[in-house]
Formats: sequence, C-alpha cells, structure tokens
Amino acid sequence: MGKDELLSGFIQELRRGTIIICVLAKLQKPAYGYNLINDLAETGITIEANTLYPLLRRLESQELLESSWSTDGAKPRKYYHTTDFGKEILSDLKSHWQNAVQNMNKILMEDDSL
Amino acid sequence: MGKDELLSGFIQELRRGTIIICVLAKLQKPAYGYNLINDLAETGITIEANTLYPLLRRLESQELLESSWSTDGAKPRKYYHTTDFGKEILSDLKSHWQNAVQNMNKILMEDDSL
Repeated sequence: MGKDELLSGFIQELRRGTIIICVLAKLQKPAYGYNLINDLAETGITIEANTLYPLLRRLESQELLESSWSTDGAKPRKYYHTTDFGKEILSDLKSHWQNAVQNMNKILMEDDSL
Repeated sequence: MGKDELLSGFIQELRRGTIIICVLAKLQKPAYGYNLINDLAETGITIEANTLYPLLRRLESQELLESSWSTDGAKPRKYYHTTDFGKEILSDLKSHWQNAVQNMNKILMEDDSL
C-alpha cells in the first residue's frame, strides 16, 4: 500500500469519529442534506453526499435525528434535526472529544520536544 | 440499542482515529507493549492489550513501526519503534488532526451559542 492510500485511510478513520459530533451539533437547527454539506464545507469539513446521506439515515434509525418533509420550496426536501436524545449524546460526545483533544495535545507537545 | 452502547460505539470510533497518532508519536522512543500501555494511561489514554497488540502488528506490517527483541531483562521483550516512514505519516496526520480540531472548535463554539 502506498503512502497516499495509507494516509487517506487514517484520515478517514480520524474523520469518522468527529463527523457525528459535527452533524448532531449542526442539526440542532433543521437542515436538508445539501444544505448541511455546504454548511460543513464552510467550516472546512468536506463530506460527500454518498457518505452523508447514509449517515443521516443511520442517525435517524438510532433516534438521534428526526426528519420531516418540507414542500415549501420548488421541490420537496427532507429536513433533519437533532432529537433530545441526540442532544444528550452530543453533550457526552463533546466532553469526550474535549478530553481527547487535551490528551492528544499533551502527547503532541512531548513529541515536538523530541 | 441503549444509550450506553450507542455512546461507547461512537467513542470507540473517535478513539480509533486518534490512537494511531498517539502510538506513532510515543514510539519514536522505543518501547514494548506493556510499557506503552502504561505510558498512554498516564496521559489519560486507556487502551487494552487486546486492542493495542493487533494495532502494533498492523502498523508494523504497514512499515510504520519496526520491532526488535531485547533479551536484557528477565524475559525477552519485543520493542517497537516508529520508522522514518512512520514519522512522515505521523507528521501528515498531526497537521490533519490540528486542522480537524480547529474546524471542530468552530462548530462547537457555534453550538454553545445556540
């Protein structure tokens, strides 16, 4: 396996853990898929439609998200929003994330001094 | 699926991406498995032997780590260290991680203001 392939696998693993936090946080304000993709992209987080859509469906089946159709626009759109249960999970994941960042910073600081 | 089960799955995903960075960073100074587990635990990162050992072997097969046996102690121990290739990958992963942290912070700051 070449370097690029290896690296992109690791980066995907890195992303997989964080994307759920981003999605649950963002969808406290209802949005449809394409909306959310653009919104995340503005914050520097790239996610492809064929990664995001299955994730949204999975999070809905886990009752972390709920969806409803809106027919206000030119075509019907499925809006997702974070449920109360999703917000609970989000809050726990945020603490874990902040903790992980602190621990990693310790290790990376040691590393820089090597 | 209950809340705890769901949460622990997400936390594992979160950890999976970061543990490789920790291992590659730490093993710039050679260590054996048990050594590394304790060292990581001191920084607040818990990893079980049956998770770490397969990971070490995988990273070795990917040429990011190298191992050698030391017979200095009471029993022979397998020491691992990060290869030059591993250090290259580590440096790329570190930039990605720092980037991910920045992006996440932006999202979590917005979130706190909701």
